[in-house]
Amino acid sequence: MAFVNENFLKLQANYLFADIAGKVKAYKEACPDAEIISLGIGDVTQPLCPAVCEAIRKVADEMSSSPGFHGYGPEQGYAFLREAILKNDFLPRGIDLCIEEIFINDGAKSDTGNIQELISSDAVIGVTDPVYPVYVDSNAMNGRTGEKDARGRWSNVTYLPCNAENDFIPKLPDRTIDVIYLCYPNNPTGTVITRAELQKWVDYALENDVIIFYDSAYEAYIRDAEIPHSIYEISGARKCAIEFRSFSKTAGFTGVRCGYTIIPKDVTAKTRQGGSIALNPLWLRRQCTKFNGASYISQRAAEAIYTPEGKAQIRSVIDYYMHNADLMVSTLRGLGFDVYGGENAPYVWMRTPADISSWQFFEDMLLGANVVCTPGAGFGPSGEGYVRFTAFGTHEKTAEALRRISEWTEDLRNN
Amino acid sequence: MAFVNENFLKLQANYLFADIAGKVKAYKEACPDAEIISLGIGDVTQPLCPAVCEAIRKVADEMSSSPGFHGYGPEQGYAFLREAILKNDFLPRGIDLCIEEIFINDGAKSDTGNIQELISSDAVIGVTDPVYPVYVDSNAMNGRTGEKDARGRWSNVTYLPCNAENDFIPKLPDRTIDVIYLCYPNNPTGTVITRAELQKWVDYALENDVIIFYDSAYEAYIRDAEIPHSIYEISGARKCAIEFRSFSKTAGFTGVRCGYTIIPKDVTAKTRQGGSIALNPLWLRRQCTKFNGASYISQRAAEAIYTPEGKAQIRSVIDYYMHNADLMVSTLRGLGFDVYGGENAPYVWMRTPADISSWQFFEDMLLGANVVCTPGAGFGPSGEGYVRFTAFGTHEKTAEALRRISEWTEDLRNN
Repeated sequence: MAFVNENFLKLQANYLFADIAGKVKAYKEACPDAEIISLGIGDVTQPLCPAVCEAIRKVADEMSSSPGFHGYGPEQGYAFLREAILKNDFLPRGIDLCIEEIFINDGAKSDTGNIQELISSDAVIGVTDPVYPVYVDSNAMNGRTGEKDARGRWSNVTYLPCNAENDFIPKLPDRTIDVIYLCYPNNPTGTVITRAELQKWVDYALENDVIIFYDSAYEAYIRDAEIPHSIYEISGARKCAIEFRSFSKTAGFTGVRCGYTIIPKDVTAKTRQGGSIALNPLWLRRQCTKFNGASYISQRAAEAIYTPEGKAQIRSVIDYYMHNADLMVSTLRGLGFDVYGGENAPYVWMRTPADISSWQFFEDMLLGANVVCTPGAGFGPSGEGYVRFTAFGTHEKTAEALRRISEWTEDLRNN
Repeated sequence: MAFVNENFLKLQANYLFADIAGKVKAYKEACPDAEIISLGIGDVTQPLCPAVCEAIRKVADEMSSSPGFHGYGPEQGYAFLREAILKNDFLPRGIDLCIEEIFINDGAKSDTGNIQELISSDAVIGVTDPVYPVYVDSNAMNGRTGEKDARGRWSNVTYLPCNAENDFIPKLPDRTIDVIYLCYPNNPTGTVITRAELQKWVDYALENDVIIFYDSAYEAYIRDAEIPHSIYEISGARKCAIEFRSFSKTAGFTGVRCGYTIIPKDVTAKTRQGGSIALNPLWLRRQCTKFNGASYISQRAAEAIYTPEGKAQIRSVIDYYMHNADLMVSTLRGLGFDVYGGENAPYVWMRTPADISSWQFFEDMLLGANVVCTPGAGFGPSGEGYVRFTAFGTHEKTAEALRRISEWTEDLRNN
């Protein structure tokens, strides 16, 4: 008799963004004339850059003939892409990796969700709070997170609150943890971490045999030269940190699906017998068994962003989005809101006024301004009282959304 | 202190095909002049068909402009593809599914590897033996398979031997199991299952609350009209079976990465409290959390194989490969080998002569004929004494490989 994995039953029914999409859809059905603008889900809107489109066309030509046909590739990705990554994303920052430490995937969500498989099922995980839901939910499915309380907090997860009161800098945990998820530039708060703060985490991890899962999917949005792009800029990180990167926000690949994970050969976990096991070959075994490599088309498309034209083209799209971020920050501040992030990240994190709950604010703004944001509570207990806006819209729609928010806010004040 | 998931340490170091690739590479390095022909890994060689290439070019054009850009798609896949699947692969066979029961993925390996996450970690799995290694290895990583004995058999897996002695028809298990993996047309044996035999399995599953994971990745190779293409052709299967399909072998998508999984809403698993839980919404939750949808490019490419041109084009490639299968079966039989499969499947399963072990035969033939096969023992204990040949080569290389095998076999006989 097959029993279900009952860990699934402890999760809220829907993934956060599925939940939001459902609410927006219901509103659209009720008010079919409403022209809703979404600054909610972090999805890009600008076209793929010409170098990428050209690479895709080239693959279509290549794959249409026997000599150019590519079937199964290496599960860990083609060398051409791993070498381009090494040469462009790491060597110029003085980070020396070898290509066996780079694993190409179909996007960072898969690997940030799957990486927990390498760790024992009784590990205690720590997360900054608020946090990208995948980290906690993927552990919950495995049974690592314990039971959930009324506030939505899991008994076996260590939450490190990040809020305006502590300048969004998480404190080192005061209870023993085994794994910590860090994401910088941060989703959802849009805040960043300095080298000195990140060094504290690496030192803590080395001292306590903790593994850091470091998500730097938004590193391309960093403008301040002092902010680290990779955790491997920090001394000692090669021994304790796994890093996740994505082309989704860097090059508009949310539909193309490609990203990569770095697992240095020096990162180990313990055995019960007191030994140490390198995680790099274990991940290769995992990927060879449960994954068949990212699409060859997507890998060639990703390679194209490392050409001189590709680099210039994706840079101009990132600048385009950061122009939105600047406009959001200045407009929302001008309206008197407390606003964070948005300087080195495509996310703006805003405190809701007058202690309105984040879901209530989401609904009020959907109805009042036909603008969608993401309720902070969806990212964890400490997200309550905040909402997230993304900079990935078009200039026109972003400006229009901000105009409507201004109008709606003024109406509220006048009533 | 982070402990490793020690279940990984019980696995053999390499995934089967990585192991074979390593041995072939070592031989190539030792004999750089050898021109090796691989009939080993089941990878296709013919170009993508014109309809598919055209669809890929069209996506490149579409994604190069704002109105045509596609970012995140639904995690379960675009409706355009799910509708095409329903209309072409199921409705004509009298199978009535709804599109919420179809989940697009990046290839069947991912889903056949991940599906076990839905089931409790103490479930007992049954597999036909020999078997596609992913089924067992993915369960071993989760800790479900117990300990491995000297023959490579896991203590908590029920093996159902399929060999020449029982005409490759697995017996119903004589101990309690919770989940059974069935793959037809079979990888690796190339044998098929009749409606009557499959009905026995469905009846058994319904009587014993067993879930069937049915892999029909090779259904497009069935030539005999009496053989079922889908388990849903069998009465009652909607209540107990999940089916995996792939475009890899149907349309040469091993590099493009797209497939799909059917989870009827009627398939349930039990809770410890005696309740029943539908697996369809659980899988949606799993996919929304750990997967971000297959590439939009790959989904549009897959859609193209359902056009009239696409259908004709992929049919002619399948016929091309089956011509190889016919040649392999007749040549190898002519040489006096015992040969199975290859009639409704792209795999030919051959008994090794004179009780030579399958790895020994693999090495002998690599050295003697410079032809690569897959050792049957790599697929499980009952694969010992057999090797697998695939029909996915070109006509020229397949004919040349068979010529060399003939010559090598005769040399052996004369010495």
